[in-house]
Amino acid sequence: MTPTCRPTKGAPVARSPRLEDVALAAGVSRQTVSNVINSPGIVREDTRERVSRAIADLGYRPHAAARSLRTRRSSTIAIHLDPYAGGISGVVLDRFVHALTDLAGVRGMRVLLYAARDHREEIGRLTELLDGGEADAIVITGTFHGDPRTRWLAGRQTPFVAFGRPWGEDDHHAWVDVDGAAGTRAATRWALESAGPEVAFVGWPSGSDTGDDREAGWRSALPTGDGLRLVSEESVSDARAVVAQALASGTAVDALVCASDSLAVGAHLAAVAAGRADLPIVGFDNTPAAEAIGLSSVEQRPERVASAALDLLLGPSESSGGASRHVLVEPQLVLR
Amino acid sequence: MTPTCRPTKGAPVARSPRLEDVALAAGVSRQTVSNVINSPGIVREDTRERVSRAIADLGYRPHAAARSLRTRRSSTIAIHLDPYAGGISGVVLDRFVHALTDLAGVRGMRVLLYAARDHREEIGRLTELLDGGEADAIVITGTFHGDPRTRWLAGRQTPFVAFGRPWGEDDHHAWVDVDGAAGTRAATRWALESAGPEVAFVGWPSGSDTGDDREAGWRSALPTGDGLRLVSEESVSDARAVVAQALASGTAVDALVCASDSLAVGAHLAAVAAGRADLPIVGFDNTPAAEAIGLSSVEQRPERVASAALDLLLGPSESSGGASRHVLVEPQLVLR
Repeated sequence: MTPTCRPTKGAPVARSPRLEDVALAAGVSRQTVSNVINSPGIVREDTRERVSRAIADLGYRPHAAARSLRTRRSSTIAIHLDPYAGGISGVVLDRFVHALTDLAGVRGMRVLLYAARDHREEIGRLTELLDGGEADAIVITGTFHGDPRTRWLAGRQTPFVAFGRPWGEDDHHAWVDVDGAAGTRAATRWALESAGPEVAFVGWPSGSDTGDDREAGWRSALPTGDGLRLVSEESVSDARAVVAQALASGTAVDALVCASDSLAVGAHLAAVAAGRADLPIVGFDNTPAAEAIGLSSVEQRPERVASAALDLLLGPSESSGGASRHVLVEPQLVLR
Repeated sequence: MTPTCRPTKGAPVARSPRLEDVALAAGVSRQTVSNVINSPGIVREDTRERVSRAIADLGYRPHAAARSLRTRRSSTIAIHLDPYAGGISGVVLDRFVHALTDLAGVRGMRVLLYAARDHREEIGRLTELLDGGEADAIVITGTFHGDPRTRWLAGRQTPFVAFGRPWGEDDHHAWVDVDGAAGTRAATRWALESAGPEVAFVGWPSGSDTGDDREAGWRSALPTGDGLRLVSEESVSDARAVVAQALASGTAVDALVCASDSLAVGAHLAAVAAGRADLPIVGFDNTPAAEAIGLSSVEQRPERVASAALDLLLGPSESSGGASRHVLVEPQLVLR
């Protein structure tokens, strides 16, 4: 059989493509190409698309080029992928992995997935990957207070970045996180302005770093510094029951800010059943489920998180010494 | 800093762990361990979990063991990941990737992600991965009639499996797909029995292999061989408008079978607005969005697809010659 497609178009045969070739093909300056490779966040989307396409068309391999000529292998970033757990909000991590793959490809890097059922097993997998030379850098996700992985990685001197804060721990490593409190604060302010003073919060039981952070954002926006707080497990049905009870009790509720889209969907179903289909409700994660039923939500921008994570791993800031490097991405309130 | 966890528990130090060690640790026979590695689909879930954990605890590396001793690298399966496109149904591919990572890990294999914006660029990426020795096997997804990737891969003699049928093309390669027609047929039969004779279909415009297949399943279950067919783009709002118009026209509709959960959510919103909140609606993909709002849906079982794909790539059937190897996974109707 004959291939029906050629893998490259217009690529010079005699020599490897250079930065100049990409700039010429994309109709931009050398600096812009460099920006797309090193700091994609500062380049306009359509320009980034055009340059990325030229890089792909020409088969230009920027960062890893020198190394891959020696080893015939690209640099590889390993990231843990949990078994699929169902639920509405898993899409945030999946979006992050999509974006990481996409942006890493532009930089000539690969993304390697590994499975592990707990953190102990994850450290075992990482040992194999690093000892075997299969991974050159690590992205860990779902960090928590006292996380053994960050200490272990720091001890190995492996380049790594965490998606998630160390939550009060020693944080002498690179991390990117989303400012959850800023998201619920923006949602609460919007609800106060557009709906009324009684903005309640639907959150998880206290004690989770992420949940407490989102609750703090809501609380900080309230004029009195406090309001009605409803507690639900991360489940549509539980949130529905909790909100239904609150609405039936006659407590004044002008709007609901929720710690997740699952809670928001449950709250929405309770509001519809109680004849309050117009009750303003804001979720968190801006998932397809929230979009489908027309709920407002706080968007985590996982694409920005991925871009920042790569900048921390590979970008110019990496070579500027071992200083703490932390990025807190501002989420976006999506109103519907 | 000192690691707070040990990567392995109870692993012999003096030699690499063997199949026997895993069997002993898991309390099963050697054959069962072998089955978990080579044909996990035939092993009970709780046994599979126990054996997988023993494999992880002991650091046993089955298939790739001999090779990795030479190269210090595991065998690597590459799979393309699109940029995130939003929408409700993207979760099916993400679930497949989660399951592939999980099951490949049990077999001592890795999953490598690569990005590409079109099939031409994808062939370019595959060329790099294969030439560079970065990938040993390929899983391609989203196959279509005349797909250039399968011909190209077959020409390279690379081990590969497709998630998706070749749809009438030369199919001398391994593939796994979900029997969409069987899914909509089951949904239609259920609707005929429980709701009434007028079971309408909400589908995409004709001409997509997957969509036509799902429509054929609906049609084959109708006593008359035909019924009301509504056409919508893959969008909640478009489906809502199309279904609202049909319900307003006074046409008899006892139930709706839909080609996707996006269409089903749109149909549900239209039914609620028309005062027909109880109209039975069945979606396709069993996404978190359908689950959240309580819609029935056809579940594609991406975990079974991943298991079958690995069996085709690595299992005993691989060594039995170059015969066609095709698996059609029966989907499951999830009623709510």
